Amino acid sequence: MTRIGRVFRIVSASPHPALLFFSSRYSSSSPRATARLLRVGDVLRESRRFSESDVARFSEISGDRNPIHLDDGFARDIGCFDRGRVVHGMLVASLFSSIIASHVPGSVYVSQTLKFISPVYIGDEVLAEVEATYLREHKKRYIVKFTSKCSTNGGGSLVIGGETTAILPTLVLLDRQNLD
Amino acid sequence: MTRIGRVFRIVSASPHPALLFFSSRYSSSSPRATARLLRVGDVLRESRRFSESDVARFSEISGDRNPIHLDDGFARDIGCFDRGRVVHGMLVASLFSSIIASHVPGSVYVSQTLKFISPVYIGDEVLAEVEATYLREHKKRYIVKFTSKCSTNGGGSLVIGGETTAILPTLVLLDRQNLD
Repeated sequence: MTRIGRVFRIVSASPHPALLFFSSRYSSSSPRATARLLRVGDVLRESRRFSESDVARFSEISGDRNPIHLDDGFARDIGCFDRGRVVHGMLVASLFSSIIASHVPGSVYVSQTLKFISPVYIGDEVLAEVEATYLREHKKRYIVKFTSKCSTNGGGSLVIGGETTAILPTLVLLDRQNLD
Repeated sequence: MTRIGRVFRIVSASPHPALLFFSSRYSSSSPRATARLLRVGDVLRESRRFSESDVARFSEISGDRNPIHLDDGFARDIGCFDRGRVVHGMLVASLFSSIIASHVPGSVYVSQTLKFISPVYIGDEVLAEVEATYLREHKKRYIVKFTSKCSTNGGGSLVIGGETTAILPTLVLLDRQNLD
C-alpha cells in the first residue's frame, strides 16, 4: 500500500480559501503552508492508544455505559473479550473522520460503513488508515470515497473495516507534523 | 411506528444469566427486574441534546478537531451550516449503540451503516430510534438487525439513517426508567 509520504505532490498553486482561512485562524506555523494535493491511492494514517479515561469519558458523553466497556469481569464473563473491557467501536471508528479532518479541515461526512471484526482493548495501539479510492469535483467541492480500516498488532490484525464518503472543500492537504 | 411501550411483552421465564449478572452489579432497583422480550417490530428510543461541552470533550477524546465542530464562524463560512458549529456525526450516531446497550447490557456491535443527511447543531433535540427488523438465535446468543435513525424537529427531520447489527446475550430487555 502506498505510503502518503511518498506519493504527495508539492503544488505551486495558491492554497484554497478554506485552507487560508484555516491557516490564519488555527495554525501557529508559517502563514503560507506547504501544500500537497490528495489523489486516488493516497493513504492517510494515524496511530492511537485509547486509555481508561478516554473510554470512561466517551461513556459519559455518548451515554453508552455498556459494562463490556467499563467492567473487566463482565467483559470476560460474556465470553467474547478474554482481555477484559473493550473500547467503544464508535470511538475507535471516529479515527476515520479525525484523520480526514486533520488533513482537510472543513471536510463534511456523507456516509460511513463499519464492520467490527475484532475487539480493541484499552491500551492497544490502533493504526487507522483511510485510502482515497474515488474522487470527483462537484460544485467547487470534492466528493471523495475512502476505504477505511483499523488494525492492531502493528497492522497485522484487522479490527474495523469500512468505507467513508466525505465532501472536501479542497484537495490541498495540510502539512502537519502528524502526517505519516 | 410501533412504540415500544405498547409492544413489550412481560415474560415469566427466568432472566438470562447476563441480565442477572448485570442486575446484581449495576442496578439499584429490585434484584428481580421486570423483564420484557425484544421482538421484530419493537422500537427503542432515546432523546438527547448535545452541549458545547459534549462536543468539546468528544473532540479531545477522538482527536477530531475539525473546526466545523468548534468554530461557529468557520462552520457558517463553508456554506453548509447556517446555524454554526455542528455535533460530530459519529457522536450522534453513538446513540444507536447506547440505546441497545442500555436495554441489553453485554450487546456487542457487529456492523453499522450511516448516512449523514442533515447537520445536528449544538442544543438540537435529537430523537434516536432503532427498530428490530430481523432476529435469529445463534449459539445461545441472538443476532439482531435494526434500522437506525436520528431525527430532529420532533421526529420531522431525518438527520442520520442507517442499519445496525448486534449480537445480544439475551432478548430480555431491562426495565429502565428511560424506556420509552
